Amino acid sequence: MTNDKKLVMISNDDGVGASGLHHLIDCTRDLLPDADIIAVAPEGHNSGMSSAISVNSPLRITRRPDYNGASIYAVSGTPVDCVKLGIHAVMPRKPDIMLSGINHGSNAGNSLIYSGTMGAAMEACMIGIPAIGYSLLDHAHDADFTQTTPFIAKITRYVLNHGLPTGICLNVNFPAGCTPKGIKVTHGAAGRWTEEYEKYTDPHGRAFYWLTGNYVKENPDDAGSDMYWLDRGWASVSPVHPDQSANSEIPALAAFLDGGL
Amino acid sequence: MTNDKKLVMISNDDGVGASGLHHLIDCTRDLLPDADIIAVAPEGHNSGMSSAISVNSPLRITRRPDYNGASIYAVSGTPVDCVKLGIHAVMPRKPDIMLSGINHGSNAGNSLIYSGTMGAAMEACMIGIPAIGYSLLDHAHDADFTQTTPFIAKITRYVLNHGLPTGICLNVNFPAGCTPKGIKVTHGAAGRWTEEYEKYTDPHGRAFYWLTGNYVKENPDDAGSDMYWLDRGWASVSPVHPDQSANSEIPALAAFLDGGL
Repeated sequence: MTNDKKLVMISNDDGVGASGLHHLIDCTRDLLPDADIIAVAPEGHNSGMSSAISVNSPLRITRRPDYNGASIYAVSGTPVDCVKLGIHAVMPRKPDIMLSGINHGSNAGNSLIYSGTMGAAMEACMIGIPAIGYSLLDHAHDADFTQTTPFIAKITRYVLNHGLPTGICLNVNFPAGCTPKGIKVTHGAAGRWTEEYEKYTDPHGRAFYWLTGNYVKENPDDAGSDMYWLDRGWASVSPVHPDQSANSEIPALAAFLDGGL
Repeated sequence: MTNDKKLVMISNDDGVGASGLHHLIDCTRDLLPDADIIAVAPEGHNSGMSSAISVNSPLRITRRPDYNGASIYAVSGTPVDCVKLGIHAVMPRKPDIMLSGINHGSNAGNSLIYSGTMGAAMEACMIGIPAIGYSLLDHAHDADFTQTTPFIAKITRYVLNHGLPTGICLNVNFPAGCTPKGIKVTHGAAGRWTEEYEKYTDPHGRAFYWLTGNYVKENPDDAGSDMYWLDRGWASVSPVHPDQSANSEIPALAAFLDGGL
């Protein structure tokens, strides 16, 4: 691998000060000592922001102190704003790879669709940049990311060397509190969230709600799924695509709906 | 079709006061005179909110005055929050159908992934509710929705009578300023946004940016795409799925990545 003067773009959804971002920069610096590493990340917490974009509000870019030889920029918007505006106004050229994370918390199962970490990776993918989202199944702000290092090196090196198919990016999740036993390429576990809100009463007697809930797997024994392997201490790599077109359904629908009233 | 006491859930991303929401309620009332119609929509503008959820902030529900026999609730969150919290705390039972919109503006092409209108529809789809997102290619707050009425009736009636395949919902777009020539079932036009930001200087000399841009189609002559037919004055119905797993890519990746370090 030629690694001199690679340009690596990094973002996340936990914000520019998150330790997961710093660990991802450290991993990238170890792997690519001569690379230009530029992080463009949200000013604050953007968990659950999916592929949201700021349509009705302005965006600012603020330079922050460098970290481990990486340039750091904060954007007053969402993870996807960071990728779009970062490409437009910060990056000196098209990045060779885009890395998102390391997210503090899981993006396995159908959490993918809500994930700001993966929103950023999918945005880069749509721009034609090989992209990987990394997540650790530990929400703590001081989560221990050290055991992810060699796995991030292996997966990032693979993508730098081989690229990824057009329209495909990777959703990588690591188990918490252990050295992963290895890597399994998986699909997202089917399932859904239940008992989704806690209800409270404010000091003025008015109700308010806060999102919570448990993920219920449809097929707990699905040995091809990310959660199956994460539960057993493995790192999971799932190929995903931003494109949500369901092309195989077109003929059946067209038979009923195509034409005039 | 048995239409007495159907329960219809309605949401949008333009906010509870948008005229597109009112027109969708009117269409639904005309089609289902005896139905229970309940709208749970964001308090304010949520364009571009994709499948974002409020993780780090509380949510309130506020009852608003009824409109055309429909109960109206405002939620202090995103379109997906409206669906999740609406199902949890407002709906008396599982809705028979969920309708989102009518959005003021296009959700054709890859706008789908950023769309709050479609975020809401995809959330309902994941819960197992047949769901349709409706959009008109006119951003004006006083856009004329009247010509969409018979098309919304036909498509909604089809879904009430036939259902939709598991994991599939519909992204329906209408051309602006004309009676649609008919309906075409399509896929989203491949393309991407260019020239994405206007740069400004604030009164204190600091730069800020605002998202803008033009959609550039990869294949302008793709006669299967939504934009092709919308450009020619037809209504477009695209089947879409929330699931972004790229399962066909798993074997090739597994050959390189499965296993230990």
